[in-house]
Amino acid sequence: MKVSEIGEFGLIDRLARIVGRGGDGVVKGIGDDAAVLEPAVGGGRLLASCDMQVDGYHFELEQITPEQLGHRVLAVNISDIAAMGGRPRWALVTLGLTPDIEVEFAERLYRGLHKLAEEFGVSIVGGDTCRSPERLVVDVAILGEAHAKGVLLRSGARPGDLLLVTGEVGSSAAGLACLRAQEELDRAGIGPETTSRLVSAFLTPIPRIGAGRFFVECGLVTSTDDISDGLASETNEIAQASGVGFRVWAEHLPVAPETKEVAGVLGEDPLRWALYGGEDFELLFTLRPGSGSQAVEDFIQAAEEAAGIPVTVIGEAVPASEGVKLVHGGEMTDLRPGGYDHFRD
Amino acid sequence: MKVSEIGEFGLIDRLARIVGRGGDGVVKGIGDDAAVLEPAVGGGRLLASCDMQVDGYHFELEQITPEQLGHRVLAVNISDIAAMGGRPRWALVTLGLTPDIEVEFAERLYRGLHKLAEEFGVSIVGGDTCRSPERLVVDVAILGEAHAKGVLLRSGARPGDLLLVTGEVGSSAAGLACLRAQEELDRAGIGPETTSRLVSAFLTPIPRIGAGRFFVECGLVTSTDDISDGLASETNEIAQASGVGFRVWAEHLPVAPETKEVAGVLGEDPLRWALYGGEDFELLFTLRPGSGSQAVEDFIQAAEEAAGIPVTVIGEAVPASEGVKLVHGGEMTDLRPGGYDHFRD
Repeated sequence: MKVSEIGEFGLIDRLARIVGRGGDGVVKGIGDDAAVLEPAVGGGRLLASCDMQVDGYHFELEQITPEQLGHRVLAVNISDIAAMGGRPRWALVTLGLTPDIEVEFAERLYRGLHKLAEEFGVSIVGGDTCRSPERLVVDVAILGEAHAKGVLLRSGARPGDLLLVTGEVGSSAAGLACLRAQEELDRAGIGPETTSRLVSAFLTPIPRIGAGRFFVECGLVTSTDDISDGLASETNEIAQASGVGFRVWAEHLPVAPETKEVAGVLGEDPLRWALYGGEDFELLFTLRPGSGSQAVEDFIQAAEEAAGIPVTVIGEAVPASEGVKLVHGGEMTDLRPGGYDHFRD
Repeated sequence: MKVSEIGEFGLIDRLARIVGRGGDGVVKGIGDDAAVLEPAVGGGRLLASCDMQVDGYHFELEQITPEQLGHRVLAVNISDIAAMGGRPRWALVTLGLTPDIEVEFAERLYRGLHKLAEEFGVSIVGGDTCRSPERLVVDVAILGEAHAKGVLLRSGARPGDLLLVTGEVGSSAAGLACLRAQEELDRAGIGPETTSRLVSAFLTPIPRIGAGRFFVECGLVTSTDDISDGLASETNEIAQASGVGFRVWAEHLPVAPETKEVAGVLGEDPLRWALYGGEDFELLFTLRPGSGSQAVEDFIQAAEEAAGIPVTVIGEAVPASEGVKLVHGGEMTDLRPGGYDHFRD
């Protein structure tokens, strides 16, 4: 059986069965955004995660500057710490370089890394460089410290919780489309005033550390996941980890007007980008509604202040037996995990 | 300027200048076997390192079983924790897989990883899988905890210290030569009774955790480095980090009789393998000689018991102005770092 037949998630599941999900000093092993670790010394908890990006799959070297690439590879890792409500601290960076690559390219990539690292209080403390003959590969391992009040897992959602998301969904997929269809958009008179925000969402996402930390502090957020594969995929991850179902209200998804405009010109469906495009690196989370709508409104206001971006209610958790469904134009359909899979074409 | 012109070490030096070698909670950043980190919570110190291995460079898929490869990629990472005198705890594993790869291959690789991980008390707590179209790439990030008594750095050697090494040097290079020249060795009547130990030294090295921990405990070891690039390279690393020179006595190098036998048949120089072959993953270290030869003999006996392998004096530290030299047959020549460089041919 080929890896391409069972896909990325099927593979991870099989490998996790071999090494297990626990262990000495392991609070949470394989299966969340980051591992939660408990050193023998001290009472703190560490967070650890890694993410590899490969030229031609995660990015195209012609479409991204080295500085942007440095930002991007670190941002997607910091995002995993955000999804745990933690504080990012240290990163290890492995570069697999083609031998003809310019030293200046690697230096510019590191300048992009360093700039974002400084913004988020991360130190680059090591790594490895080696030859990757055919294409650039960048792997980052990130270490963080958990919030003293705890961590955000995928597994705490309960029926009745609200489903929310930070920022916008679909902007990253729209940005990628802008890069790929530049000429077509030019011809339609769609310029940088429309596309630049979207392109930035794809190339240089901003990890939601402030939001994640607020979610731990407020004590009302019951589960969190960052949107890497796609909203549909992550909604199903929370559903599975928590043992609940979901209703996702299509009309409530925070899709930017620019995303709709670009989709219109290119004949694409902005809802598809929002649900399956992925790489928004926003936080998808569930909220215990507490004492009614005023409490929810208060939470949203406080969350928006902490995060510096809008926060939107997009659905609700239901019993697992009711499944994960999209409610759209009065119709209800299954919302299947349909995000990007590295091993399927 | 191409990366291939300045080489791996020139590149690392330039990148380290961009991101710096310090930072908040960074006791030791880029420039040793592992980073030494100080979490805000608790009084412990963490060790972190990573190492990527690429098919066709670090190994050849036709020459290594998946289980052996799993062992190898983890062993070279655990070795970095050994060189710091630490305890390995957790690992993240990133697989870049060709899409036609069999699920069974990945599972067997993970079984090899898991077996070694269990032996050394390491939990595999996460990772990433993605597509690497042309060749298999495995990157491991390892986390450890420092010994309560401190860490072993490269920078503590002083003139008058003795230079020692655990186990044998050159066995790994000899093992690689055995794999490459199997037919020639068969014709010369050199069989597995000679080659199997060497091949194992190359394919499935044993990290020297017990030795490293003993070095911290005894308080007499002033610097340590693990032999990845080659004895000549690592001797120069300690020399540079400590601000000393070295005399390395060629006749004292612990080269296995099997290595000499294979080198003889293949017309190779076993001393070259011992100095430049690399990937022995033994610990090279300096010892404060203390109160004379009896103290050194006592140390060696205790170290061999702790490590379960022989420990050999191979040279001495001298003032930096006297350089790093090889003493061989009464002659003294410069011992230049000449280990493997991923970016030079």
